Parts: sequence; C-alpha cells; structure tokens
Amino acid sequence: MKKIAILGTGGVGQTYASKFIALGYDVMVGTRNVSEKLASTSKDGYGNPPFSEWFAANKTVRLGTFKEASAFGEIILNATQGGSSINALKSADLKNLNGKILIDIANPLDFSHGMPPSLIPGLSNTNSLGEEIQKSFPDVKVVKTLNTMWCGLMVNPAMINDGDHNAFLSGNDADAKEKVKEILKSFGWLDKNIFDLGDISSARGTEMYLPLWLRIFGATNNGAFNIKIVS
Amino acid sequence: MKKIAILGTGGVGQTYASKFIALGYDVMVGTRNVSEKLASTSKDGYGNPPFSEWFAANKTVRLGTFKEASAFGEIILNATQGGSSINALKSADLKNLNGKILIDIANPLDFSHGMPPSLIPGLSNTNSLGEEIQKSFPDVKVVKTLNTMWCGLMVNPAMINDGDHNAFLSGNDADAKEKVKEILKSFGWLDKNIFDLGDISSARGTEMYLPLWLRIFGATNNGAFNIKIVS
Repeated sequence: MKKIAILGTGGVGQTYASKFIALGYDVMVGTRNVSEKLASTSKDGYGNPPFSEWFAANKTVRLGTFKEASAFGEIILNATQGGSSINALKSADLKNLNGKILIDIANPLDFSHGMPPSLIPGLSNTNSLGEEIQKSFPDVKVVKTLNTMWCGLMVNPAMINDGDHNAFLSGNDADAKEKVKEILKSFGWLDKNIFDLGDISSARGTEMYLPLWLRIFGATNNGAFNIKIVS
Repeated sequence: MKKIAILGTGGVGQTYASKFIALGYDVMVGTRNVSEKLASTSKDGYGNPPFSEWFAANKTVRLGTFKEASAFGEIILNATQGGSSINALKSADLKNLNGKILIDIANPLDFSHGMPPSLIPGLSNTNSLGEEIQKSFPDVKVVKTLNTMWCGLMVNPAMINDGDHNAFLSGNDADAKEKVKEILKSFGWLDKNIFDLGDISSARGTEMYLPLWLRIFGATNNGAFNIKIVS
C-alpha cells in the first residue's frame, strides 16, 4: 500500500486525507504537536469543527508529528498554511524528506493587511513559496500544483463543468511531475487539462493568481469554480 | 462623433486606435513628444515597425501630446507602459482628465529582473496600477479592464472559442463601469462574460494574474488564449 504524509490538519489536509484513504493509500497526517491538536476543542478560522472530531470519524488515518509523518510517507503533501510551511518542513528533518516528492498545494497568503489576504512579500513576485521550499530543501522534488482552487475541487474536478477545467504543474524534476500527474488523474483530472508550466519558478504564476481567485470568490460567494484556458 | 484619447503609441495603442476608428469614433493618440515619435525610425521592443509607418497608413487617426489628446478625448484610454502611466497622466493635466472615464488596460510590468517580467513592487500585492491612478487622480473615473489578455483579443474576443471567455471590470463608479461595459460589448464581448469584480482595489487581482498569463504564454508561445470561469 502506497504511503503518503499530509502535513497540515486543516480543512485542506482533511480533504486530501479522506481522498487518499478512498483511493487505497495508507495516510499519516502530520502536525506540530499531536497532543495539543487532539486536545483542542475550538473551531478553526473557517468555523469548521475541531480536528479531533474529524479524526475520530476517520479511524484509518494515522496522526503524527511533522517528523513522524514525513518519515512514514513515500510522498509528502504540504497542506500547511503557506506562512508556516518552511518551519513545518524544517521540523520534519532533511533525512525524512530528501529524495522524496513533495506536492506543494499551499499559498503564501498574508492576512496581516485584512481581507482578502495579499501575498507574503518575500514569497511573491520575484520569489514564490514553491521556489522557497525548493531552495530550502534542494534534494526534495518539489511539485507545485492544485493551489489555484478550492480544495473540494482539487480532489474532485468532476464536480463542475464535467471536469473540464485546468490544473497546473510547476517543478524542476520531470519524472516527479509525471508521477504527480498520475495522482491528479486518479482524482479525475483529464490529461489534456493538466498544464505543465515549467520549472518551479513558474509557481510564481499560480500563486499570484490567488488574488484574482479571491476577488472572483468575493463577488460570487461560491468557491466551486475554476478557470479553463480557451484558445 | 464620440471622441476618444488613446495614450500610448505602441502595438496596444495602435490596436485600440484602429478598432475605435472602425467603430466610428474620432481618435487622437497621445504621446510624450510628437516630433520625436514621428522622427523615430527604430522598431519597438517587440520588433514592430516604427509608429510613423502605422500612422502614415492610418490617416484618420489624430496625433498629439498626452495633454492635447486628453483635452480632445471625452473618454481616455491608458495604453502606456504601466511603469510610465502615472507620469504620462500627470503631463496630461488634471483639467483635461477630471470628470472623465479613464479606461486603464495597462499592467505594472517590471522588466528589471529579466524575462518573464515581474510586477513593480510598489504597484502590486497591497496596491495596483489601477488604484495608484485612482489615488493620484481622485476626480477621474478609473475603470480597469481587459488587462488580462493579448491586445488582439481585447478588441476582438470572437477570435477564439466563439467569444465565450471572460473580461473583468474594476472601478469605484458604477455608471462609468456600465459605460465601459457597453464599449466592451461593441467589441463583441458577451454580457454574461463581463465580470464585475468590484471596486478599483480588485485591479490587484487582474494585474497579479499577469505572471500566470506570461507563464502560459511562455509554455505555448501563443498569445491568443484567455481564461473562462467555469462553475
């Protein structure tokens, strides 16, 4: 059974964990502090129930520290908040990450200027979260993908427009991108709609799309949308 | 006959001038220095012929300084390079701009870090060119639109996908946005595809989409594409 680590216990991490379980993976979710996470009874920033409730209802999912989850996973998925991703990965230890594929779906959102969020200055425009992770962990195969939409669509593209809309891939390792593409196809993404933008620096493009996504969402109050490239 | 000023003599300005002439407008193109512009025999940065050649072939178009064109136009269209837009508008004089609709299609591209360009730091993320123009000229009705695609598509959306793809509007003045929407419809934009994102701060969204546009263009070498929102 393929083992995957999902770093981050929020709604996005939960969505991926459930999807990978449904696809037959062995899943460990990683968090900073396991006992704190399980003891917390407060809702998250989006009004979702505490993680412990979801965890109790999903008994086949394992839970560990960032380090334990990364040691467990043959593939790592970064579903932490963009501003915390580098620290989360540092606490996972290089030896648990090196040589592995790291699927990065996070965005470097900056909530310090109010809503809608902007992007963290040092992680945008002439840099990106995807690139910063790759620079910080040069022996990890970082593939940026799926960060351009609501998590429900990431793992279930058929929910809208018969699944006919686009996902993007950015990364330096062609073989890693091919393997991630296969995972996307297992979610229901159509081969023709998975757009390879190039090396990891192209993550600037998909991350900087977020402000437009947030404005469209703000105008419609519906997150179940995506873009389709037409020509 | 409706009078329009187009600030900027590059390929984008020429495309708009030709389109507005074809639609029956009286058009004056504005430039920094008329005699210098007509005397120049060098190709532009994209390899296009000098402006004087285009101007000689389009005899119904008027040419003036930024100030003359702005005094002439009942509507102003900003097709200057984003990094020069504020200075171009300052040289047009407030009395020639105040109370008028300014259609801003420019992007604050920063070529100083090589290709593809990034965005000018002070005009992105927590600001935008559209907002900066509105703040600098508070009595002008700034409407940001069409900056998310190649200029050929801006004025001829039917060129791809039967015209079924999206344009965005950002601006503080509802009546001005309605009037600009009518202009877009005269270009062939479908009412259902003109997406009002909200006030001028939403220009951050469309301008920050440019890095993704540039990466898609870089991967396909085809600028005749656009995005369609599907849900």
